[in-house]
Amino acid sequence: MTREIPYKIYLEESELPRHWYNVRAHMANKPAPLLNPATLEPMSVKDLEPVFCTELAKQELDETNPWIEIPEEIRNFYKMYRPAPLVRAYCLEKELDTPAKIYYKFEGNNTSGSHKLNSAIAQAYYAKKQGLKGVTTETGAGQWGTALSMACAYLDLDCQVYMVKVSYEQKPFRREVMRTYGAKVTPSPSMDTEVGRKINAEFPGTTGSLGCAISEAVEAATGQEGYRYVLGSVLSQVLLHQTVIGLETQTALDKYGIRPDMIIGCAGGGSNLGGLISPFVGEKLRGEADYQIIAVEPASCPSLTRGKFAYDFCDTGKVCPLAKMYTLGSGFIPSANHAGGLRYHGMSSIISQLYHDGLIEAVTVEQTAVFEAAQKFARVEGILPAPESSHAIRVAMDEAVKCRETGEEKTIVFGLTGTGYFDMVAYQKFNDGEMADYIPTDAELEKSFADMPKVGK
Amino acid sequence: MTREIPYKIYLEESELPRHWYNVRAHMANKPAPLLNPATLEPMSVKDLEPVFCTELAKQELDETNPWIEIPEEIRNFYKMYRPAPLVRAYCLEKELDTPAKIYYKFEGNNTSGSHKLNSAIAQAYYAKKQGLKGVTTETGAGQWGTALSMACAYLDLDCQVYMVKVSYEQKPFRREVMRTYGAKVTPSPSMDTEVGRKINAEFPGTTGSLGCAISEAVEAATGQEGYRYVLGSVLSQVLLHQTVIGLETQTALDKYGIRPDMIIGCAGGGSNLGGLISPFVGEKLRGEADYQIIAVEPASCPSLTRGKFAYDFCDTGKVCPLAKMYTLGSGFIPSANHAGGLRYHGMSSIISQLYHDGLIEAVTVEQTAVFEAAQKFARVEGILPAPESSHAIRVAMDEAVKCRETGEEKTIVFGLTGTGYFDMVAYQKFNDGEMADYIPTDAELEKSFADMPKVGK
Repeated sequence: MTREIPYKIYLEESELPRHWYNVRAHMANKPAPLLNPATLEPMSVKDLEPVFCTELAKQELDETNPWIEIPEEIRNFYKMYRPAPLVRAYCLEKELDTPAKIYYKFEGNNTSGSHKLNSAIAQAYYAKKQGLKGVTTETGAGQWGTALSMACAYLDLDCQVYMVKVSYEQKPFRREVMRTYGAKVTPSPSMDTEVGRKINAEFPGTTGSLGCAISEAVEAATGQEGYRYVLGSVLSQVLLHQTVIGLETQTALDKYGIRPDMIIGCAGGGSNLGGLISPFVGEKLRGEADYQIIAVEPASCPSLTRGKFAYDFCDTGKVCPLAKMYTLGSGFIPSANHAGGLRYHGMSSIISQLYHDGLIEAVTVEQTAVFEAAQKFARVEGILPAPESSHAIRVAMDEAVKCRETGEEKTIVFGLTGTGYFDMVAYQKFNDGEMADYIPTDAELEKSFADMPKVGK
Repeated sequence: MTREIPYKIYLEESELPRHWYNVRAHMANKPAPLLNPATLEPMSVKDLEPVFCTELAKQELDETNPWIEIPEEIRNFYKMYRPAPLVRAYCLEKELDTPAKIYYKFEGNNTSGSHKLNSAIAQAYYAKKQGLKGVTTETGAGQWGTALSMACAYLDLDCQVYMVKVSYEQKPFRREVMRTYGAKVTPSPSMDTEVGRKINAEFPGTTGSLGCAISEAVEAATGQEGYRYVLGSVLSQVLLHQTVIGLETQTALDKYGIRPDMIIGCAGGGSNLGGLISPFVGEKLRGEADYQIIAVEPASCPSLTRGKFAYDFCDTGKVCPLAKMYTLGSGFIPSANHAGGLRYHGMSSIISQLYHDGLIEAVTVEQTAVFEAAQKFARVEGILPAPESSHAIRVAMDEAVKCRETGEEKTIVFGLTGTGYFDMVAYQKFNDGEMADYIPTDAELEKSFADMPKVGK
């Protein structure tokens, strides 16, 4: 190809994907089924319906249809901020003096500041279509809650967000964005739910946890007529919706005849990583192409690299179905000094299975190195990245530097999931030289492994 | 035209303007010259050189060249976030049930969160090219300071920002973004400059003002070898650089054969408004087309609609050249309850002359109405707008509603200058129902007019 590659490859709106790609259809080893925590039987759509919309419950369990049509109304919403650009990191390449060619798929150009909106609108749409009044959810840092409140405002659907109390108080701006979009934001634990009252009574003055907020959101959904619970990561339905990221990336690359050697994404619950890599993994599974695929997780929350591949609770409250995944144990909580997201104790069961089968690799990085990469990236590429996304930046930069040393002209693609505008407290820590690294000890992990359920092998 | 108009019209990078448009070249009545405050003689390039880079001083005074080439390095920087999309507000049109067609040029898709970057990179570039070590500036809310620190980081130029002390303390996130880009951010008044020490001694515990920060930045520039002072609005050079906004808008409209009836922009110092409208005003001046052009200013700081057209000081410290402009008097400070930017007492001399000559109109809006529009816009269009930009949104919505009543299918274009992520304190006030309006009385204005210099007619 002699065609010059622009700084940003934008697709036409007509090139927006018409289907989500369901990688499970092409996996030889399917992810293990969700289990009912009481009976240990695989969950059916009927079992999931009290908590999830029917259509989403179906998507959660669908292992056979490779392509699931994106409804027109969702596509129209996507058009407000998609197709997202695939950016050629010319300035970063120059800064690193590398023969590697670096591209990133940028998902931060929307008010939620991340890729979360891709699934939020889908989940809200199916809730609306089912005639529901509203949805409930939890949020930690606030990215998912913001995305969901945007989607609900658009569809005129009630949105109730339980926000971990410490974030509610320390991230007032996130809270106000959600309120501006009409969401009811409640600090968790609250006095509105039974579980919240119980926890407040047991632990007066607690600042809350994601596990507790999940339990409150689930109780609020099942306790109100016309409400369902929605979740921003981990679930297979979420990975499905996020495949617009990878599909657009493929189309953009194809347009210029680019073949990546390496695809890199950060991994917390797996939503962005799964969305980015699924279509490429599909090519691998179908024997059409080969790519090196790298999941990057924080050293302080290393579920893939140091976790067990086993059935575990999805929430600390142990009310959700059991999932087989790489997990650190549902009681694991990363060190308080760990900045940003990627704090979940487990990993999407799709990602877990792919990793187990050797289709993807995983590495860990420490957070000061992550923020060093974030700052360098911001200065040369102009985008202030989210701490989560910066895990992928770190590894992409390291790989590009290796290319400088070996002279290889590798093509590297990574996912830039979002912007860091609401993470300036963490940046300040870094700017002030007060950021520290933390790696859990083996003894700490053994302790949280001990609490895992004894299910299957 | 039968071609379907997408949600977002993106230009190719090859369509990025190669020249800025200097509207002064086509104005029959040129803006009155800047005057030396000591001699009252028009300023020459030589007079401006101690404060501004030579090339920028030339641009400041250039009234004859209609097209000024954009250097390649600036164009490459522009490619990181430009061309910016022209968005068809389909969702807003539907929400308002209007036959009007609404478009907005969105300048918020970059880390500075606004159009300010367009001039920041140009000013930093010429400073670098002149072999300078760095630049100094002041910032209030922080948009301009952020943009300048991004540009300086890219060019490896030192950046010293004097940030009004109250903003420094109340907007720590803005401050941290600037620090992440390597800028030195000093709360003003500081103890680093003579003027800062003097003000601190006179008014112990003062929280600072923009006027004082300007004086400190100018002193810092002239007192350090290899430094110059730069400014983010009001100056004719800034409007020149900002014409990339209007030129891209023209190209995008032409591509789909769209002829706007009305162009709307918010007006503080005039940088965004001037950038957006200059190319369209040029068509009017050359008799090629006619457009209704509306400047929207806050009712609490109504320089065009209630100010005097006269020579005035550009800064409260009275150290800068005198400019003939619509002004409320350099001592005018908008009510403390006024949120967001658009707080400058005067108006770009280009915009002032165009307004005086009847080429553009001006209206005022009150801030609760502005935030109502901002919230509605955010909910249907997905973008959380800056308070400044929302002034234009308010009037665009009002005009679209008028079209609903008259049945006119007007085409409305407005400038969406930026995002409101760092303005959540103001949104919170609005969400909590605690936002109030304020309109200065005639007596208050007479008082600040009284302090204007007695120059010319």
